Amino acid sequence: MHAYRSHTCADLNISNKGDAVRLSGWVHRVRDHGGILFIDLRDHYGMTQVLCDPDSPVFKDMEKVRSEWCIRIDGEVKARDADLINTKIPTGEIEVFVRDIEVLGSAAELPLMVFGEQEYPEETRLRYRYLDLRREKMQQNMVLRSDVVSSIRKRMWDKEFKEFQTPIITASSPEGARDFLVPSRQHPGKFYALPQAPQQFKQLLMVSGFDKYFQIAPCFRDEDPRADRSPTDFYQLDLEMSFVTQQDVFDTIQPVIGGIFEEFGGGRKVDETWEQISYKDAALWYGTDKPDLRNPIKMQVVSEHFAGSGFAIFAKLLEQEGTEVRAIPAPTGGGRKFCDRMNVFAQKEGLPGMGYIFWREKTADAVAQELGITVKEAQAKLKSGEVEGGMEAAGPLAKNIGPERTEAIRQQLGLTVGDAAFFLGGKPKTFEAVAGRARTVIGDELGLTDQDRFAFAWIVDFPIYEKDEETGKIDFEHNPFSMPQGGMEALQGDPLKVLGYQYDLACNGYELVSGAIRNHKPEIMFKAFEIAGYGKEEVEKRFGGMVNAFQYGAPPHGGCAAGIDRIVMLLANESNIREVILFPMNQRAEDLMMNAPSDPSSDQLMELGLRVIPQE
Amino acid sequence: MHAYRSHTCADLNISNKGDAVRLSGWVHRVRDHGGILFIDLRDHYGMTQVLCDPDSPVFKDMEKVRSEWCIRIDGEVKARDADLINTKIPTGEIEVFVRDIEVLGSAAELPLMVFGEQEYPEETRLRYRYLDLRREKMQQNMVLRSDVVSSIRKRMWDKEFKEFQTPIITASSPEGARDFLVPSRQHPGKFYALPQAPQQFKQLLMVSGFDKYFQIAPCFRDEDPRADRSPTDFYQLDLEMSFVTQQDVFDTIQPVIGGIFEEFGGGRKVDETWEQISYKDAALWYGTDKPDLRNPIKMQVVSEHFAGSGFAIFAKLLEQEGTEVRAIPAPTGGGRKFCDRMNVFAQKEGLPGMGYIFWREKTADAVAQELGITVKEAQAKLKSGEVEGGMEAAGPLAKNIGPERTEAIRQQLGLTVGDAAFFLGGKPKTFEAVAGRARTVIGDELGLTDQDRFAFAWIVDFPIYEKDEETGKIDFEHNPFSMPQGGMEALQGDPLKVLGYQYDLACNGYELVSGAIRNHKPEIMFKAFEIAGYGKEEVEKRFGGMVNAFQYGAPPHGGCAAGIDRIVMLLANESNIREVILFPMNQRAEDLMMNAPSDPSSDQLMELGLRVIPQE
Repeated sequence: MHAYRSHTCADLNISNKGDAVRLSGWVHRVRDHGGILFIDLRDHYGMTQVLCDPDSPVFKDMEKVRSEWCIRIDGEVKARDADLINTKIPTGEIEVFVRDIEVLGSAAELPLMVFGEQEYPEETRLRYRYLDLRREKMQQNMVLRSDVVSSIRKRMWDKEFKEFQTPIITASSPEGARDFLVPSRQHPGKFYALPQAPQQFKQLLMVSGFDKYFQIAPCFRDEDPRADRSPTDFYQLDLEMSFVTQQDVFDTIQPVIGGIFEEFGGGRKVDETWEQISYKDAALWYGTDKPDLRNPIKMQVVSEHFAGSGFAIFAKLLEQEGTEVRAIPAPTGGGRKFCDRMNVFAQKEGLPGMGYIFWREKTADAVAQELGITVKEAQAKLKSGEVEGGMEAAGPLAKNIGPERTEAIRQQLGLTVGDAAFFLGGKPKTFEAVAGRARTVIGDELGLTDQDRFAFAWIVDFPIYEKDEETGKIDFEHNPFSMPQGGMEALQGDPLKVLGYQYDLACNGYELVSGAIRNHKPEIMFKAFEIAGYGKEEVEKRFGGMVNAFQYGAPPHGGCAAGIDRIVMLLANESNIREVILFPMNQRAEDLMMNAPSDPSSDQLMELGLRVIPQE
Repeated sequence: MHAYRSHTCADLNISNKGDAVRLSGWVHRVRDHGGILFIDLRDHYGMTQVLCDPDSPVFKDMEKVRSEWCIRIDGEVKARDADLINTKIPTGEIEVFVRDIEVLGSAAELPLMVFGEQEYPEETRLRYRYLDLRREKMQQNMVLRSDVVSSIRKRMWDKEFKEFQTPIITASSPEGARDFLVPSRQHPGKFYALPQAPQQFKQLLMVSGFDKYFQIAPCFRDEDPRADRSPTDFYQLDLEMSFVTQQDVFDTIQPVIGGIFEEFGGGRKVDETWEQISYKDAALWYGTDKPDLRNPIKMQVVSEHFAGSGFAIFAKLLEQEGTEVRAIPAPTGGGRKFCDRMNVFAQKEGLPGMGYIFWREKTADAVAQELGITVKEAQAKLKSGEVEGGMEAAGPLAKNIGPERTEAIRQQLGLTVGDAAFFLGGKPKTFEAVAGRARTVIGDELGLTDQDRFAFAWIVDFPIYEKDEETGKIDFEHNPFSMPQGGMEALQGDPLKVLGYQYDLACNGYELVSGAIRNHKPEIMFKAFEIAGYGKEEVEKRFGGMVNAFQYGAPPHGGCAAGIDRIVMLLANESNIREVILFPMNQRAEDLMMNAPSDPSSDQLMELGLRVIPQE
């Protein structure tokens, strides 16, 4: 018999009755039922009940066993009594009567229980991650992650992509975030950097004539941690293709990402058609470039109904250039309590407030107030038909702009009795983001957002440049490597009007994928950088490797990168990225289990030609 | 039609005759045959001949096109004239007559030609790697690498291993080589390290209850470069299993590695049975723990034949304790010239020389010398049968020890006429390595080594400890994490006799795989370190993460790691590892293309709390 096991803890069933077996695993739980010991023995694959009574030659040894000890047992498979059958697990019909035991690894007092549902502080969980990872949910999350990554690879191979490994110890490439640096021993005082992404290398691969590249690539950004971001390294599905248009990239990646969500989404609905929404429309409709389309609310411009109206705040505001009033329709939100709560939400977000109108059945109260009669009289008039019932608009805004404008708004937004609409005005940049968050809250609170769905949309036509409102300086809005739509010609005109072949994939409010058709023509690239104030020398210094390569017959190419950690997070229904990473750093970028970072030895510093500046 | 191509440059054949097609690719070669331009258009997939004559509307544009320009052409597929058919390529029956052309990326003057076989200095190749990689051999090597890695993954999944990504920015773990350090911005003055291997993490995964782990893992060692070693990062197939014995690991990895060599070995023979050779026997038989078993030569101890013999040097030497005389048999090496050359080889390697005996047909010369008669007389005696002919041993050694001992040696080594044997004596450590290298040279020079074969052997039973001859100090011979055979009990005796469950896989003279059954018991681990002079505190400081984890129910586990770069190097028949890495560093650990390493900015240093010590 094998030294450790004849079966895993998930293997045995009633067909093994009578077999002499050997199992190894961890003691999940020990129960003592009147002198009979029941032990749930757990391994990666499952759980098997083993038992032992004073008839067993090893009863005394079994009595010593504690939770999370790793043991090997020999025993005989028995059928459980009918009333003890557990139909929830594959081994639920049997149990193993123990004849021999070997303690493979005993356990000290546990800082964290594997059995049960107790919550522990994240610091404890990370310090004893090897215990935390034994918990069922964590085992599932990590296996899910592994399976997702395998499936991605298989899907990419099926599309004839080759996976290539690009360098990890390489040059600093300022792409937005902060680099991690690596001091060079052979060149003291000089530093390598870890790649923020294999951006330049994948483009170099295209220049090298490799047609379809992908990599499940580790990326390194020295960023302050967030719930959905690892403070050190993270993984992306990085891909690049030559001789392609934007639509080719979409057609390539959609079945991969969509397929993954179908395969691992646990039956949640996955959009089949992925709308393409311009960056501009996304800002207007959803207040963000990563909209959650499970939420059906779409904002609209309603400026015309407020221009010159009796609502002086908006009317005045609209006289200024570049201002707008936008409405957030809120179907089923038609109640004063809800509307007031949303107004408070806007105030908490730093706005003066959020005007609203809601539509309700005309009440006797309202009729009484309108006609200056008692509520009783009003009830009578409604009953007799002397006054017509039906819908009425409520809220101070409705009063200020009058019934005609109110009705026009209602019709534009397609609302009815029981619904509401919220209004925000000013220069869009000043309220757009809050409007987007309000839309999310409204969708959630009113139960409009479909929780069992993965909703996808491509956000396209990103502007290449933005203007710093204060300094008036033009800078890149996003990635400086994207090809401007219209090429060199477009760069001769107003830079703020130039759109790029650049795109994001939004899913349920997260940015899952980001990519572009690249600017592969050196002259267009230099021009693009010049507009943002970077001279030729600066560009050559920063991106020399890539820019030089483009002088030697660069093909048109494009691609994208998809965040693996985030995809798994969505599939696992987790909101903290550390739940889907094996050994994550804590929020202070420390690994308490491994004791990192730590003090270097003076020899190490000497070899690297470095001195640590004493901190105060 | 698609913006760039209707077909790849490998797609078209005679069945496309008459089709209007669009191709994109690089101008491999331009030939002007009396006013007709022939262009070999190349992409990742293949090559298509396009042609253009003054009838084409774009003849003038085509005339401008130069090598390595990236172009798009539209044209019509035509059958080649019968005498122009190229049967070596799939597109060899057709050519495309060009009607339109677009220059996608022109090329400056080339520092390196893609077409042709010209050799360039490595510095040039690495600086313009994107051009170098366009060459056919490099494209093949990189695709081979990609395919090998995919195949390994599939094979591991088939064996129900899960791939997990372990941290890259982590703690320093002194495992032998030098760490790359990464300064922490959030904790100025402290440093992370890049993992030399995921050793501790894979063991932690086993403690976490994951049963079968693998990873194509990047590893980082700050080592001085060699032909078969990258100076920064390299990749290994890293795997670990719980509840296994050494044989289980062998049974798992052999079909994976063997399968890869079968799949990608280009028909070269792959050993089916992998012998297990003890470290001790490997040293004796082959003079190395990574023997090349394509070479049939096996060394032997022949001390008994020299002890007390007339060859004073060896006879005296054997009186000292711990000395031996070993023979390298050299079938077909029986000639004075060859034997003298090998003697010189040994001298160049720092030994006093290498005695030899060789066996030949008895000559008249020898008989004349032996009997003190003339050669003519000797010839007559041989002819008449008065003196017997046959085999004789030649070389000074044979004379010194006399015919009986010489014959005994010949019989032990199984040699015959035309063969030779070389002899080395002393303490084995002093000559073993040279003997191993001599064995290699002998095998190569005599053509004994089968070039078309991948020969595998497991080297097992490594000693855990070695003794420093000078200081007498006991230290770990190899990996300190291996389980000693015999466990705690073995550690109570002579440490130099303790063998480990530790193994290497040798293939054609390279170490392809290295692994061990781990020491998972804290008490045995502390004892093992204590013997090597490391106190408990030191062990906890160095390997705290893992040692702590072992307190909480660690399972028995083991695994190994296989060098990906080296496997691909062997398969691609390359002897320089940089031929199978996309963007390698040069021998000074620099990337001239990307300009790494480079000077940090003062802001970066400030953030990291570091100062660079000025170098003289």
